[in-house]
Amino acid sequence: MNIAIVGLGLIGGSMAIDLKARGFASHIVGVDNSKLNSATALNIGLVDEICTLEEAMTKVELVIVAVPVSAAAKVVTQVLDLSNDNQVVIDTCSTKEKICLSLKNHQYRNRYVATHPMAGTEYSGPWAAKSGLYDSKVVVICDSEDSGPKAVDLVKKMYDTLCMRVVLMNSANHDVHTAYISHISHVCSFALALTVLDKEKDEKHIFDLASSGFDTTVRLAKSSVDMWLPIIEQNKDNILTVLDTYMEKLQAFRTSIQNGDSDTTRKLISEANTIRRVIK
Amino acid sequence: MNIAIVGLGLIGGSMAIDLKARGFASHIVGVDNSKLNSATALNIGLVDEICTLEEAMTKVELVIVAVPVSAAAKVVTQVLDLSNDNQVVIDTCSTKEKICLSLKNHQYRNRYVATHPMAGTEYSGPWAAKSGLYDSKVVVICDSEDSGPKAVDLVKKMYDTLCMRVVLMNSANHDVHTAYISHISHVCSFALALTVLDKEKDEKHIFDLASSGFDTTVRLAKSSVDMWLPIIEQNKDNILTVLDTYMEKLQAFRTSIQNGDSDTTRKLISEANTIRRVIK
Repeated sequence: MNIAIVGLGLIGGSMAIDLKARGFASHIVGVDNSKLNSATALNIGLVDEICTLEEAMTKVELVIVAVPVSAAAKVVTQVLDLSNDNQVVIDTCSTKEKICLSLKNHQYRNRYVATHPMAGTEYSGPWAAKSGLYDSKVVVICDSEDSGPKAVDLVKKMYDTLCMRVVLMNSANHDVHTAYISHISHVCSFALALTVLDKEKDEKHIFDLASSGFDTTVRLAKSSVDMWLPIIEQNKDNILTVLDTYMEKLQAFRTSIQNGDSDTTRKLISEANTIRRVIK
Repeated sequence: MNIAIVGLGLIGGSMAIDLKARGFASHIVGVDNSKLNSATALNIGLVDEICTLEEAMTKVELVIVAVPVSAAAKVVTQVLDLSNDNQVVIDTCSTKEKICLSLKNHQYRNRYVATHPMAGTEYSGPWAAKSGLYDSKVVVICDSEDSGPKAVDLVKKMYDTLCMRVVLMNSANHDVHTAYISHISHVCSFALALTVLDKEKDEKHIFDLASSGFDTTVRLAKSSVDMWLPIIEQNKDNILTVLDTYMEKLQAFRTSIQNGDSDTTRKLISEANTIRRVIK
């Protein structure tokens, strides 16, 4: 199958590698606004050729739109406008409610499948693409009842090739879930990085003792602002709700620590410890 | 050299393994209040024998006190009271100002070296002990001017055997530094776990989409309450200071997200991104 990948970053590039290597794609066409990304992707062999979106649409059966959240709805609309009945388009955005809403009434909505492959690293760009990024991870397909059954089947097959577990969910629920188990972690991590960077201004060696616990907690703070600003803006309401609960929990810790109330602090930590049940 | 390890958990047990394997210790005596820990440590070969503290003091040249922060000052005092001039004692606690203060005027203070090997996992108990835990990590020796030079030399040699990088620091500074780069990460992680566990009460499947970003951020929330409650209590003032700065940073995010103020949110994330400079 010929496929086009629009947006040659970590997400699109990593798909290109494994879809080609595992025989799902025979020819991959790359589309990207950035000349540097395009040249790099071609150079390191992520794609077989670079062309414009218009050209690409004359060559492929499947289009993967892997651009930042803020551009995705517009690009998917362009793709659908140019599409024919034998073509399928997916996006890979981390937020799903707004994009599904804005495409809801497109005359070719059935050719579009809204997906969110839940994998990534704190790096970005075609250089960051790697094989195996998606293996054993979860992909969410949203509002699949609005997509044609054949389109959904093709996309499931594609994600099977990437060894992902498919979860179906409506787009509003998806955004609530990801606010809790992904977006908030990033905001916490950004804020924690800022806290220690602030201290560094008057205590030059504050990072000398940084241990693995610190590294893992702030690792996400390296995440690209170009990717995360649009996610935060698109999922604003859910993120604010989670942030409020999180700040209440911190305040509960603050109060019990301040008061020397060991019983309450112990109770809070013990309850947090039950997270062992859900994470490895 | 014969050594005693008081407290046969992750920290003491992991030291036992490598100090024996790497030839620093020829015979290791274990001391622990818990019969289960003692039996386990003997059973899995962490120590050569189990005895009381009094017996141990007749047999060894070096005593490693690796008990929870809340018990350490009392145990080190007991050890010093029983010690002779050829014996050295160290503790391994994560907070250092209080213990150094409480031992400041002990008549044998020079036989004591205050240390904090900055390594660990979220697991505890003798079962969790493992070889290599300390390799390439940092160990802080605090207030070394209060220890005898021979005692400090011996302890440095011991940490060399564990392949640790020694940093000298006064105990008050140590506690400020660890509040920023270790303790706060744990409080954040506990609070984040509580936030999502709360949501789980009305959204049973909230963890279905949990990805690696979430796992790394909440990993520390699995940390033992028996270890962390005393650390938080002993380093209360520093932790509250850091917590306040952290909550201010979160509030800055909250305000800019709420107001749709992209410029400010972008600035905050971009500044957080500079953490790349200090962590791998």
